Amino acid sequence: MPIHTAYLHFNTTHRQEFVRITDDVAAIVKASGVRDGMALVSAMHITSGVYVNDWEEGLIHDFQVWLEKLAPAGLPYRHHQTGEDNADAHLKRTIMGHQVMLPITNGALDLGPWEQVFYAEFDGQRKKRVVVKVMGE
Amino acid sequence: MPIHTAYLHFNTTHRQEFVRITDDVAAIVKASGVRDGMALVSAMHITSGVYVNDWEEGLIHDFQVWLEKLAPAGLPYRHHQTGEDNADAHLKRTIMGHQVMLPITNGALDLGPWEQVFYAEFDGQRKKRVVVKVMGE
Amino acid sequence: MPIHTAYLHFNTTHRQEFVRITDDVAAIVKASGVRDGMALVSAMHITSGVYVNDWEEGLIHDFQVWLEKLAPAGLPYRHHQTGEDNADAHLKRTIMGHQVMLPITNGALDLGPWEQVFYAEFDGQRKKRVVVKVMGE
Repeated sequence: MPIHTAYLHFNTTHRQEFVRITDDVAAIVKASGVRDGMALVSAMHITSGVYVNDWEEGLIHDFQVWLEKLAPAGLPYRHHQTGEDNADAHLKRTIMGHQVMLPITNGALDLGPWEQVFYAEFDGQRKKRVVVKVMGE
Repeated sequence: MPIHTAYLHFNTTHRQEFVRITDDVAAIVKASGVRDGMALVSAMHITSGVYVNDWEEGLIHDFQVWLEKLAPAGLPYRHHQTGEDNADAHLKRTIMGHQVMLPITNGALDLGPWEQVFYAEFDGQRKKRVVVKVMGE
Repeated sequence: MPIHTAYLHFNTTHRQEFVRITDDVAAIVKASGVRDGMALVSAMHITSGVYVNDWEEGLIHDFQVWLEKLAPAGLPYRHHQTGEDNADAHLKRTIMGHQVMLPITNGALDLGPWEQVFYAEFDGQRKKRVVVKVMGE
């Protein structure tokens, strides 16, 4: 069974930024030669996530406003006693999820018509990684 | 390694509806012939989810009330400027999760005593799909 | 393809308790002999979860305060009409997630520098299990 591993690298301009990675993952799947199987796409940092949803700027804005309401920055989080200031980023990424498993059928990602894969950065402006591991036949 | 792919189809009566799919997934696993492995169960639409929790009508009601509180319908979401009216459905499905990986042991789903698999529809009354992909030996 | 299955057992002192299980999962992966693949780590009960985040006591406290705010105990949940009193535990575990897939590369968990795996108990003081299933080469 072929198993193929690749890493995506990020260094976002803004502290919070959602980056569409569907095409990057699709390219890794194609290079893997796997025709039928699954691809794990997982953030390797604990202040960012990976999720599947719509590629529509208005909705991305809605997600960000909503996350700020559910997990606000600037509260007196106990985590900040360590010198960190990013507790809200840990919470926000928890809501969005930190990984997805993508089905592969006939050599391509088997996604619904509107499914797009995103990297969600909540504490960026530095180097981050996502691991992509493809398994199948 | 056998890999088996199937699709579940939904067209719910109500806009929001939670449908138990444990038996449907178990039947796909049995048909696959896989004795040891995993099954990915993943919504192919971005306004529905798949989750594991209790098969108890009271709790399902509690989930729905809770989601309405955390991600209300009817707010002036920016996504609605596209003509859509379902931004809350995208948010609600994000909280519930859009997919699960189910372990398979001895030819059956290896679930705890109360684990049940559900399809969570938040923008129904039209055709939707869930992909089930079984991998293993 | 080797597939290896193991179970972790818990019986927490407190009703709510987060337990770091990274080393337990790493030991199962090592014993499996899998050099390249994935490990599913999934709670088998519906009032506990498994998540990846920071091993920092302040942040764990922040998570617990935050979950209490988003999914409070003690509300008149309909689930409680069955005699249960743990509806909030079902909701809290939904936010944290009930499972993770961990990549395995070169015979070890392929985690980022701060990624730690936790079992999140929300209705403990009794026997619970987590299934770990390792697949790969």
